[in-house]
Amino acid sequence: MMLQCSLCGAAVREDSLLWRCGCGAPFKADFGGIPPMNRKRIRSGEQGMWRYGASLPLERPEEKVSFGEGWTPLVREEWNGMKLFLKLDFACPTGSYKDRGMAYLVSRLRDQGIHEVIEDSSGNAGASMAAYCARAGIRCRVFVPSYTSEGKCVQVASYGAELERVPGTREDTTRAAEKAAETAFYASHNWSPWFAHGIKTFAFELWEQLGFTAPDAVLLPAGQGSLVLGCALAFEELLSSGEIETLPKIFALQPKNCAPLEEAFREGKPIPGKVRKTETIAEGISSAEPVRGREVLEAVRKSGGAVLSFSDREIWDGFVKLARRGYFVEPTSAIVAAAAERLSRDGGVGRRDTVAAVLTGSGLKGSGKILSLFASPPED
Amino acid sequence: MMLQCSLCGAAVREDSLLWRCGCGAPFKADFGGIPPMNRKRIRSGEQGMWRYGASLPLERPEEKVSFGEGWTPLVREEWNGMKLFLKLDFACPTGSYKDRGMAYLVSRLRDQGIHEVIEDSSGNAGASMAAYCARAGIRCRVFVPSYTSEGKCVQVASYGAELERVPGTREDTTRAAEKAAETAFYASHNWSPWFAHGIKTFAFELWEQLGFTAPDAVLLPAGQGSLVLGCALAFEELLSSGEIETLPKIFALQPKNCAPLEEAFREGKPIPGKVRKTETIAEGISSAEPVRGREVLEAVRKSGGAVLSFSDREIWDGFVKLARRGYFVEPTSAIVAAAAERLSRDGGVGRRDTVAAVLTGSGLKGSGKILSLFASPPED
Repeated sequence: MMLQCSLCGAAVREDSLLWRCGCGAPFKADFGGIPPMNRKRIRSGEQGMWRYGASLPLERPEEKVSFGEGWTPLVREEWNGMKLFLKLDFACPTGSYKDRGMAYLVSRLRDQGIHEVIEDSSGNAGASMAAYCARAGIRCRVFVPSYTSEGKCVQVASYGAELERVPGTREDTTRAAEKAAETAFYASHNWSPWFAHGIKTFAFELWEQLGFTAPDAVLLPAGQGSLVLGCALAFEELLSSGEIETLPKIFALQPKNCAPLEEAFREGKPIPGKVRKTETIAEGISSAEPVRGREVLEAVRKSGGAVLSFSDREIWDGFVKLARRGYFVEPTSAIVAAAAERLSRDGGVGRRDTVAAVLTGSGLKGSGKILSLFASPPED
Repeated sequence: MMLQCSLCGAAVREDSLLWRCGCGAPFKADFGGIPPMNRKRIRSGEQGMWRYGASLPLERPEEKVSFGEGWTPLVREEWNGMKLFLKLDFACPTGSYKDRGMAYLVSRLRDQGIHEVIEDSSGNAGASMAAYCARAGIRCRVFVPSYTSEGKCVQVASYGAELERVPGTREDTTRAAEKAAETAFYASHNWSPWFAHGIKTFAFELWEQLGFTAPDAVLLPAGQGSLVLGCALAFEELLSSGEIETLPKIFALQPKNCAPLEEAFREGKPIPGKVRKTETIAEGISSAEPVRGREVLEAVRKSGGAVLSFSDREIWDGFVKLARRGYFVEPTSAIVAAAAERLSRDGGVGRRDTVAAVLTGSGLKGSGKILSLFASPPED
């Protein structure tokens, strides 16, 4: 399998084990002659997301690393008169949508015979990587910021991964992981060309669960933007196979306190610039330096959607509204409810449009934090 | 729909709103002429457990209260040479298998036009009841022991349920709820005749996911024993429709520190007696007075299985073994790994038998407790 630089177009072999191009940009996967997904290519006998295995090539598919992840519920709601479908990806095996990406990423690591990896994460991705490496028998070192809560660390450590706590910011953690990667494979989900292909299965599921139609709009939390990239990959495949006629509008959602993609989108820039980052309750999407920012902005613009930003107060209000309807999610995930609230009141989607939103992570990951937010909610 | 006393056989109408028989025993549901499940009755177009909706009668099925729960992954493992299938029911919407029972129970409450309910729970059932009542628009009061951790309470409260903290033991909480039930409907999942019918869908899924065959043995954590009852209901249906030829052996698993069912089973008694209860890490199945103890013992004996008990040390060792394979579960759920360990080493199931085990609750519900167990594990 070949990798292609997303910026300069240079091609390298996957077994070179390079995690980024010499020019500094991330790689994309080149799937060569594999036809795009259509309804005839669905393997209905397979568990979960692997029903779309035809679009997730592996050298030894029978040895894929899987917990049966995916094929999560899609639940219909009315939101101020708007038809909203919630995709319950927090009900994945490790409690977040990241499992889709990790199942494919770690399966490819096993295909390559890799025995030891390094990942950096502030939470969900580290837990997911640790679980899939445990199943694959791959040694896993997860770098986390030293401020990461014990509750999040205990899940990673339970799976048997080695935790490396790094002082400083989330970005300092990434730099420490990159440095360690001089002696072991850096399997960063953000740099990986495979991760977004695993993620794209959520969008195939939307399409199938909606009776083989695309929604008109999709609401996606965006930090590094893997959901946006996965969404674009899936609907591009379905468009090119003739299964759908138009791409859904992608709304990428960021916290106001860390919104590099939103700023670049608003200013018409092709890549995100430096931003001042302050604390936010949407910690899972608080990414000041999105690795694939250019690709994410391109995907949003091509879809006719937008990048929107929300205050912590709006996100918290969204959390409470979701919980009162029976959805207990991470505060990060609640940004989709803030978006549903704004779009349903101010327009932005049509009255008869079908809107889908991904609930990305379980509230059980942040019970302590949620408790303190009830005690002192964010101010306006 | 009629209810029938599980002990004296008295029949009452469901709309009497009685939650137990005048003789003091719990009711069973009388489904009358509804034929048992077979593969032709599966509704493959329905989400999750509702593919078995033909065996979950409702007056207004289109108004069922559902988050698309069920159809959870089944993952194959080898355990000391034993073929073990793990059913990932912790990946239900509220983080536990209870969602199956609550989806059906709360759907029936809505059918009956009930607007306010009382439940008592030490954790998972309360959270699940609160979520489904939120979706159904039913006011919900959940009674919990005052020692219940804040982490568990925050999930229940987030869904908008009213929490009532009761001093004393788990059994004192039940008595407080029963007293409050003089003025509102007591929807206790343990007393409900519907709950186990929702639970039975996990066993239908086992059958379908194993290629329409029954496993040889099933490992089930048992406090009140709803999994045992649901398992028996499902496989009895499949036996009477001719889909399977023998019932799987049911192994009901209890912590040594609270094992009324195990003691009665060992001593050949028809109902559990009083037991001394001490603290256990398997708090989800620490039930000193199982409401349906007689039915549970009957089901286990009829299947040719057994009730087994395990020390906290064995359960904790099971937790670690599961986690190292990528499954992060509540310590309660880890009792199935303790059982797999014992049965695979000492026999008890055949070398070529197919064994299935339910992983009932998410480890994310007990991160704090798991952290302290790593620091000071239970002693032998």
